[in-house]
Amino acid sequence: MLILSNEDIAGVLTMDVCMEALEDAYKEQAAGRAVNQLRYDTNMPLPERPEREARYEFKTMAGIIPKFGVAALRMSSTLNHRPIRYGVERAERLYLAPGEGTVGLIQLYSTETGEPLAFMPDGVIQGMRVGATFGLAAKYLARKDSAVMGLLGSGWQARFQVAATQVARKLSLIKVYSPNPEHREHFAHEVGEECRVRIQAVESIEEAARDVDILVAATNARAPLITADMVKKGIHISAVQNEISDEALAKAHLLVSHTEQNYWIYNGGKGQYGEAAVHGSQKLQYGKMPLLDDVIAGKVAGRTKDDEITMFRGHGLGLQFAAVGVKAYELAKAKGLGHEIPTEWFTQTLHT
Amino acid sequence: MLILSNEDIAGVLTMDVCMEALEDAYKEQAAGRAVNQLRYDTNMPLPERPEREARYEFKTMAGIIPKFGVAALRMSSTLNHRPIRYGVERAERLYLAPGEGTVGLIQLYSTETGEPLAFMPDGVIQGMRVGATFGLAAKYLARKDSAVMGLLGSGWQARFQVAATQVARKLSLIKVYSPNPEHREHFAHEVGEECRVRIQAVESIEEAARDVDILVAATNARAPLITADMVKKGIHISAVQNEISDEALAKAHLLVSHTEQNYWIYNGGKGQYGEAAVHGSQKLQYGKMPLLDDVIAGKVAGRTKDDEITMFRGHGLGLQFAAVGVKAYELAKAKGLGHEIPTEWFTQTLHT
Repeated sequence: MLILSNEDIAGVLTMDVCMEALEDAYKEQAAGRAVNQLRYDTNMPLPERPEREARYEFKTMAGIIPKFGVAALRMSSTLNHRPIRYGVERAERLYLAPGEGTVGLIQLYSTETGEPLAFMPDGVIQGMRVGATFGLAAKYLARKDSAVMGLLGSGWQARFQVAATQVARKLSLIKVYSPNPEHREHFAHEVGEECRVRIQAVESIEEAARDVDILVAATNARAPLITADMVKKGIHISAVQNEISDEALAKAHLLVSHTEQNYWIYNGGKGQYGEAAVHGSQKLQYGKMPLLDDVIAGKVAGRTKDDEITMFRGHGLGLQFAAVGVKAYELAKAKGLGHEIPTEWFTQTLHT
Repeated sequence: MLILSNEDIAGVLTMDVCMEALEDAYKEQAAGRAVNQLRYDTNMPLPERPEREARYEFKTMAGIIPKFGVAALRMSSTLNHRPIRYGVERAERLYLAPGEGTVGLIQLYSTETGEPLAFMPDGVIQGMRVGATFGLAAKYLARKDSAVMGLLGSGWQARFQVAATQVARKLSLIKVYSPNPEHREHFAHEVGEECRVRIQAVESIEEAARDVDILVAATNARAPLITADMVKKGIHISAVQNEISDEALAKAHLLVSHTEQNYWIYNGGKGQYGEAAVHGSQKLQYGKMPLLDDVIAGKVAGRTKDDEITMFRGHGLGLQFAAVGVKAYELAKAKGLGHEIPTEWFTQTLHT
């Protein structure tokens, strides 16, 4: 089995490949030939630590795609806190593992034999799979003539939103907002050059949202940044976190979800058992919203008119990590990248 | 980080250590200082395979115990089928990974830094943690003067039931039943010698259950083997699978559960989303049964009278793998066992 690094993956994986793999995976899902084990988060407060609301968090999600011959587990083992920055509560990690690191892994297993195929950190794929899914949402939900994009956030996730939306639509301008002027200027310059698109750093959320065809929130804010007045006719809006306010959500003609079910959070300290997560607005009715995979497979209509308002709310699915992870594995393996360790270290013959 | 083998673990871990670690872990859980992420099973049918109801199954459970400094993930990646043997449907694995292997791993992570500490196959610990938990159930629920034990099953799980029940009570006789005469005879001889206890192979479930103080089912049968007529005054009964019939369950004065919640199964093929598992009888009311950790912590009374009928139904908890896994890791590390790989292979510095 192969151990890959983020550098290995960044060197072989492209946004086109990610989007194609995901499109195929969603069609498998819509046909009942691929399945997700939803995200589960488990956490314990660490009251001894000095940071605000420090917790140890363990998360898992998984997906199985027999067509690709893989199952993927995506897990993370992190210490987190909730600092207040720019007046808003943020969810941030503490980098305490060796080399000022943190732990998020994609583990790929064969559906033909069960054996582990590859383990890899999730950083690069995490950014690319979110970008790729939002790019597919734009492909199926945004107006065909969409040319101007507003982008909230200038972090790791945001850069892949640019690449992916460009695959879906011919963009002439991206307006990026981040509360840190240095970050947004740097982003506009660097990502604009990298993706060969005009990116303009703007000074407010309102400016980023004004006169855009596509509005994407890719922040770590735990607050509804996108308000109803930003929702104009014909716009397509998508959000990584809970950035769309309830009033804004209510204006959607078509609100597409990534999943039919919410996930569970096991809050240690409050009580040892789980509670259903409220992911996004409490008004989101999981199980009643159309699903992205059904839209992509043509089982549910996407946008039907230019003046419709469409929205997409995605939370992560294990299937994404299976689809994109196996591409990274195949491409890296073909190039001889990564470290090999004996597969037998992770298998057993005991009949338990 | 360390990669351990089943042999490494079998060489260092004893039942006493397992039971002590679990007793401590359950007290942490009862005090709200340890938490479980319940088991989730996800599967896809593999209609091309020749075996009866062949499926690829991916399972996870996790637990966090800050007192021990660890979180554990227990996952398995297996191909399974449902053969009919001795007239009963069995859940069995296919051994298709390299070296006729299968994949079940315990992954230990630090709650202080998030980093991976050790990965190890789950076979030995799987047997020992089930045995240890059932041994603790016997310690807190069986009559103090229990001396005769009936045991259904002669497989991997069954041998650890003998060792663990012996830690809890002074046994003078164990009657073992398995439908295969060779298996039960072999078990009686081998495990009897190993555990220095008299084990008698018997020819029926009824014989195994007659005049016993403790009755344990550790089979892979998916059928209610323990019937109401076997439930005598003062008995303690525990079951790994669904071996206690509804009528037998109804005779319990005290039915203790391992967990307050059922888990989810994601059945690929039938529909892409999950359904709550019915683990054990449909009559089991999760959330209303007293819990083993509360009994051990003294928050809920165990057996109060000699003629009471007590029962324990356990399904696996991530916490068990954290508690027992960390002991295996510490003991193996102290002896210099296992393979070291660079921790940095599984960490990352990207701020995603």
